Amino acid sequence: MMVEGKLWRTIWREANPPAAGIIDQTRLPHAMVTRSLRTLEEAAESIRAMRVRGAPLIGATAAYGLWLAMRDDTSDAALERAIAVLLATRPTAVNLRWALARGREDLKPRKPEERVAAALALADRIAEEDVTLNRAIGEAGLPLMRSIAARKGPGEPVRVLTHCNAGWLATVDWGTATAPLYRAAEEGIPLHVWVDETRPRNQGSSLTAWELRQQGIAHTVIVDNAGGHLMQRGEVDLVLVGTDRTTSTGDVCNKIGTYLKALAAHDNGIPFHVALPSPTIDWEASDGLREIPIEERDPEEVTHLAGRLEDGSIARVSLTPPGTSAANPAFDITPARLVTGLITERGVCAASAEGLQGLFPERSS
Amino acid sequence: MMVEGKLWRTIWREANPPAAGIIDQTRLPHAMVTRSLRTLEEAAESIRAMRVRGAPLIGATAAYGLWLAMRDDTSDAALERAIAVLLATRPTAVNLRWALARGREDLKPRKPEERVAAALALADRIAEEDVTLNRAIGEAGLPLMRSIAARKGPGEPVRVLTHCNAGWLATVDWGTATAPLYRAAEEGIPLHVWVDETRPRNQGSSLTAWELRQQGIAHTVIVDNAGGHLMQRGEVDLVLVGTDRTTSTGDVCNKIGTYLKALAAHDNGIPFHVALPSPTIDWEASDGLREIPIEERDPEEVTHLAGRLEDGSIARVSLTPPGTSAANPAFDITPARLVTGLITERGVCAASAEGLQGLFPERSS
Repeated sequence: MMVEGKLWRTIWREANPPAAGIIDQTRLPHAMVTRSLRTLEEAAESIRAMRVRGAPLIGATAAYGLWLAMRDDTSDAALERAIAVLLATRPTAVNLRWALARGREDLKPRKPEERVAAALALADRIAEEDVTLNRAIGEAGLPLMRSIAARKGPGEPVRVLTHCNAGWLATVDWGTATAPLYRAAEEGIPLHVWVDETRPRNQGSSLTAWELRQQGIAHTVIVDNAGGHLMQRGEVDLVLVGTDRTTSTGDVCNKIGTYLKALAAHDNGIPFHVALPSPTIDWEASDGLREIPIEERDPEEVTHLAGRLEDGSIARVSLTPPGTSAANPAFDITPARLVTGLITERGVCAASAEGLQGLFPERSS
Repeated sequence: MMVEGKLWRTIWREANPPAAGIIDQTRLPHAMVTRSLRTLEEAAESIRAMRVRGAPLIGATAAYGLWLAMRDDTSDAALERAIAVLLATRPTAVNLRWALARGREDLKPRKPEERVAAALALADRIAEEDVTLNRAIGEAGLPLMRSIAARKGPGEPVRVLTHCNAGWLATVDWGTATAPLYRAAEEGIPLHVWVDETRPRNQGSSLTAWELRQQGIAHTVIVDNAGGHLMQRGEVDLVLVGTDRTTSTGDVCNKIGTYLKALAAHDNGIPFHVALPSPTIDWEASDGLREIPIEERDPEEVTHLAGRLEDGSIARVSLTPPGTSAANPAFDITPARLVTGLITERGVCAASAEGLQGLFPERSS
């Protein structure tokens, strides 16, 4: 997508010296800074510190991390160690597990001397597939956008509420929840996006607001508390979010607070859709609340916050009385009963085992 | 309540020079600073800038504001002007309207030369009545706290989630939602309070966390997004909030985001109670969503935020890309159907016209 009028992806291969290039998303929206990841450790650190985040981009970064690891040591032991190091960076994103499982499956049977080239080819393939998947999600979601637009007066925007960042910054390109929006914008459908700021890390007010601005899509930032009120007042046509992991039965694990928006959408008869690339489906899990572990992150993400001072420099401020304890669960589960539809690369389906099996019959058991 | 081991109220009369003393709540939790309000304008500014906030404390401050206005000019015109200036400071708090109506009723029939003393006596009375009301709310809520405690193992705390600050800082003393907690603590019931930070102004992480700490009550700050997840996981026994205005039918207007917590409590079978001093009841209104205007505050409260730098100084940082637009509705409506009970100074009742009329029969028409 566009940054200052130029096309970018969130991760790319660099030749000299060999590296994976990324946008350091912890610096957005205040600065557009890139980094070159040259080692397994740098790739793992970037995932852990959320320089790259979003389930699909984490998967792609992990794949490049395997390549960087193989460049250093092509042994079986090094491969297993790299998988273990990368797997430990973030517990929730199922794409991470999925990308690493593909890496093991592809690389393990090969001779060590083939592994560097094979790991690079696999990482490139995973990145390209992500772009293709997300574009297909955009196509699959377009009829929904068109049908809402058709009920509107001329020039009246389709008003979408989104939570966190499931935009192109969370993927290699296009985004998941944003893909139908970007496709709708290409079609000339007027849009207005309510952007939940998404405490504690503010991925909405920093990343989603930034990327929508770069693509020229009208938007307004709100605190996470405000969405229910806007829905009560009839100011939201559609809630559209991403997911870090969705069970085979349609329970959606996504950024903390998603469940509250789903409840409000349900209470106000507003469609609540989840953009879902299939690598994000956990086919092993059938009960989100029981089976998906929720990452507990550093309480300082709640008690402290970074922003831009008047002079443009970045400062970290504390929000609570000294010594205050905080809890920081990073995700919650939206039960399938609250989800109107899942937008996958193969089309839209109900959030249920039947719905998902209809689109992915190869997975029915 | 206690600050650094000494007893305080949030507003008090000062003799020399004559003034109303307040704690400047915009400086908390980083500094405990008091101010002397010597004129009507200073009282109005303190309400507008939220140096004092919380419906009951706004009412008491407005009453002292009338006294300060009368000290300057005791004419009918000055009285009406003071009422208009104070009424315009905040649109939602029904206590403001209520305190000013009492002021007009008390002062208008009097001779101008009696008005200064009468206004002061009325302000003192309103402040004292608030303390009495809140203590009574504490008593009324105590059986609820006891009944939850009775289902717990020895030493297991009653886990209460609260939103915004309906603590003693929102009132003259005791608080509304905190009154049952402070009474329970006096009785030796172990407590743990989940404190919603309450964006955008963070009254939870700054004020509620600060006052609970000063009273020695265990608590943990969470982002507003986290409450639904904690309820899903069975980590909340009771949601207890205040209100800025409640209709005669039990629709509750409270800080933005309250509605989302009520939905989550309802979805998880957790009791959701509202502490409601009767001056907060709008007997004229019967449909919260249609009849209660929602204050839209400055968008900079969303895009900017103040906190404490490492060196202890206070800085204001910006959170969004430059030029980002934001919306800032300050309250939402929790429909009566989501409210388990109203805790008033006369006891607990259902959130319905019948429930409220049962406790306040003088209001039934």
